[in-house]
Amino acid sequence: MIGIEDEKFIRGKVPMTKQEIRILTIAKAQICATDYVVDIGAGTGSLSIESAKIAEHGYVFAIDKNPEAIDLITQNAEKFSVDNIIIINSEAPDALRQVPRIDIALIGGSGGRIVEILNAIDEKLKTGGRIVANFITIQSLAAMLDWLKKSENYIYDAMQIQINKLQNVGGYSMSQALNPVHIVTAKKFPQKKSPNIIKLPVDSQESKSNISSVAVNR
Amino acid sequence: MIGIEDEKFIRGKVPMTKQEIRILTIAKAQICATDYVVDIGAGTGSLSIESAKIAEHGYVFAIDKNPEAIDLITQNAEKFSVDNIIIINSEAPDALRQVPRIDIALIGGSGGRIVEILNAIDEKLKTGGRIVANFITIQSLAAMLDWLKKSENYIYDAMQIQINKLQNVGGYSMSQALNPVHIVTAKKFPQKKSPNIIKLPVDSQESKSNISSVAVNR
Amino acid sequence: MIGIEDEKFIRGKVPMTKQEIRILTIAKAQICATDYVVDIGAGTGSLSIESAKIAEHGYVFAIDKNPEAIDLITQNAEKFSVDNIIIINSEAPDALRQVPRIDIALIGGSGGRIVEILNAIDEKLKTGGRIVANFITIQSLAAMLDWLKKSENYIYDAMQIQINKLQNVGGYSMSQALNPVHIVTAKKFPQKKSPNIIKLPVDSQESKSNISSVAVNR
Amino acid sequence: MIGIEDEKFIRGKVPMTKQEIRILTIAKAQICATDYVVDIGAGTGSLSIESAKIAEHGYVFAIDKNPEAIDLITQNAEKFSVDNIIIINSEAPDALRQVPRIDIALIGGSGGRIVEILNAIDEKLKTGGRIVANFITIQSLAAMLDWLKKSENYIYDAMQIQINKLQNVGGYSMSQALNPVHIVTAKKFPQKKSPNIIKLPVDSQESKSNISSVAVNR
Repeated sequence: MIGIEDEKFIRGKVPMTKQEIRILTIAKAQICATDYVVDIGAGTGSLSIESAKIAEHGYVFAIDKNPEAIDLITQNAEKFSVDNIIIINSEAPDALRQVPRIDIALIGGSGGRIVEILNAIDEKLKTGGRIVANFITIQSLAAMLDWLKKSENYIYDAMQIQINKLQNVGGYSMSQALNPVHIVTAKKFPQKKSPNIIKLPVDSQESKSNISSVAVNR
Repeated sequence: MIGIEDEKFIRGKVPMTKQEIRILTIAKAQICATDYVVDIGAGTGSLSIESAKIAEHGYVFAIDKNPEAIDLITQNAEKFSVDNIIIINSEAPDALRQVPRIDIALIGGSGGRIVEILNAIDEKLKTGGRIVANFITIQSLAAMLDWLKKSENYIYDAMQIQINKLQNVGGYSMSQALNPVHIVTAKKFPQKKSPNIIKLPVDSQESKSNISSVAVNR
Repeated sequence: MIGIEDEKFIRGKVPMTKQEIRILTIAKAQICATDYVVDIGAGTGSLSIESAKIAEHGYVFAIDKNPEAIDLITQNAEKFSVDNIIIINSEAPDALRQVPRIDIALIGGSGGRIVEILNAIDEKLKTGGRIVANFITIQSLAAMLDWLKKSENYIYDAMQIQINKLQNVGGYSMSQALNPVHIVTAKKFPQKKSPNIIKLPVDSQESKSNISSVAVNR
Repeated sequence: MIGIEDEKFIRGKVPMTKQEIRILTIAKAQICATDYVVDIGAGTGSLSIESAKIAEHGYVFAIDKNPEAIDLITQNAEKFSVDNIIIINSEAPDALRQVPRIDIALIGGSGGRIVEILNAIDEKLKTGGRIVANFITIQSLAAMLDWLKKSENYIYDAMQIQINKLQNVGGYSMSQALNPVHIVTAKKFPQKKSPNIIKLPVDSQESKSNISSVAVNR
């Protein structure tokens, strides 16, 4: 079951995706047991750990440029007895070169390079795969929406989530606002082909190799 | 014009109604130039000062039990050159005994005694007058909604306001949530009379004295 | 994986818990494979179906007074090939008499009888069990918060969730607000005992039998 | 006093700025009695009328391309006995050519041409003047934030406002969400001059003429 409580994670000064946003992000990703998942801007590893528990026969590639984050992910993976996380201490989009073809891409943080990251993900993401991204800035959100609009092979939905916790203060329930987050969920469909292209006979590897070469040539 | 910026007020550790909530509260109150206004839980006096500038030929009675608040109201009244605020260092509802009949009651804080405060306000509030209350707890909000439902001579509207400020962080606009506030606006109408009561001839003072005696007997 | 899309459910005029609220409700409930779950005000059965898929070796008791809802739950259970839902066409709290001891209670709708429903749930809920309730009215929310405060054996958290969908309108992303929902999650702990009670030696079954008798005697 | 109730305006199918957003927009604009105000995408004229009542010795230029809107503005101006609104049935930014130098620009709708509109406003807006814009799309908001970042002579603040009305349904207070709106408030400062420019002696008209020529030459 997803939904580990925030307090259960070992946390440093690294920002962490809050429980409710994490739950929605993981649920929107619709991860399967054999999936390969990449977690970009993994931070404390909270999204990686929840993903790794679902993708129990797959792998999670947790990418973060910050060595402190790498430490925390390592500690949390150990704490939650998760052994299918591959930790990559490098920056996206470059770090994505080290990753095989993936089913799911989670974006917790993009460091202002969202378009490059999306291009790099697109090269690795299988048809039918999903990207789920969290945004705390208008600019990165707008950039992803723009990228999706230009792209021909994603359908997506986007939403803002705002949580107000009710704190018990002397018997009164007082609203405490958490900062709102946007979640964008994009599903990759087979690339549209122009209708007048002649389809030559190909070997059984066709669909797979075709897609990867298209991706490489973009 | 209403809408003094938060930074312009002299502030201590006393909580202050934020600019946007203040603007909406004052606008909902529809204060006139000759109005008598009471501000309960006046805090730094921000609502009192905005009210006093509109009720330029009336008075604002600023009530707060906290001596630190009284100090701040005094300083802010001086800073904004407002001379029609009467400051009462006492606790509501008792402090309301010192106040004449009023046109507008603002409730910034109720210290858990909202029902008693509403009863005391009701005794002082003229027909056609308004109560505008800000709530940060579910319990006090629910108590006022309940009081209004039982009362026969108020119409009201209620709403929650949530503000997310966009902070500029390195060229990116990042949402920063403020805690949500509920604003309840109630307008007092002439008391309904039961239809089967025999109306005896009365002097011209009837409606007024009738209402105040009812109020006294509640 | 939780998070069935809203469109996938067969829906009538019966209100349905929206996907994001459903995801959070189910995740907060932390349902296990062998759990007995009761879903009060089951509506279209969306919470029941997501629960039944997790509690695959347990049962979900879906309660609704509305025959139209019963129809929809039946149809949706069939559509999603779920065979561990027991549908009860009756009104809570009375309907709860027909239910065995439970691990999880979900409250989607309380029809203004939240306190009676909570009392009835409390009699059936095992120690360590959870109640997760969704509220769309201030009064029912306040009543549950009040009930929890008086109760001695629950810890809880409460929050408001607001979702704004970004609709694509001619290439522009326009916010469309969904009505906010409060989610209250309460976990039942062993009842506090008064400190001056003499503890007699008991067999290893003590804590369990003790608690169940307490529950019965309430 | 600002804050006319929504129901008081004559409304067609033209979208109208809701009362609370209108109150905040007008308050943020800090309009003075002698100000020249332009209202772009005036719709029903609700912002124009509230502005015209404050700028009683100034003028409001209400711009809308939609003839239905022009009709409604005319009717509403008559209803509220406001005679200082000049109605321009044309599209911004072109319509701004017909407008004199202004103190305040309100943007209720930008029809996807926000950057051109901001450039045209900038040519007309006096130093110390204000732009207050309402946004319902991420893209137009992002475009204005970007424009402001590039500009050297505005300081601004931006925020999202979300209102949930509490509807009384059978004695229960049910939240009904309004779509959130972003409000951006920008204040124009004198243009920065590069520090190594030799300042020649000039007449007392210097700062004013300098700025206007800069504006014309942009």
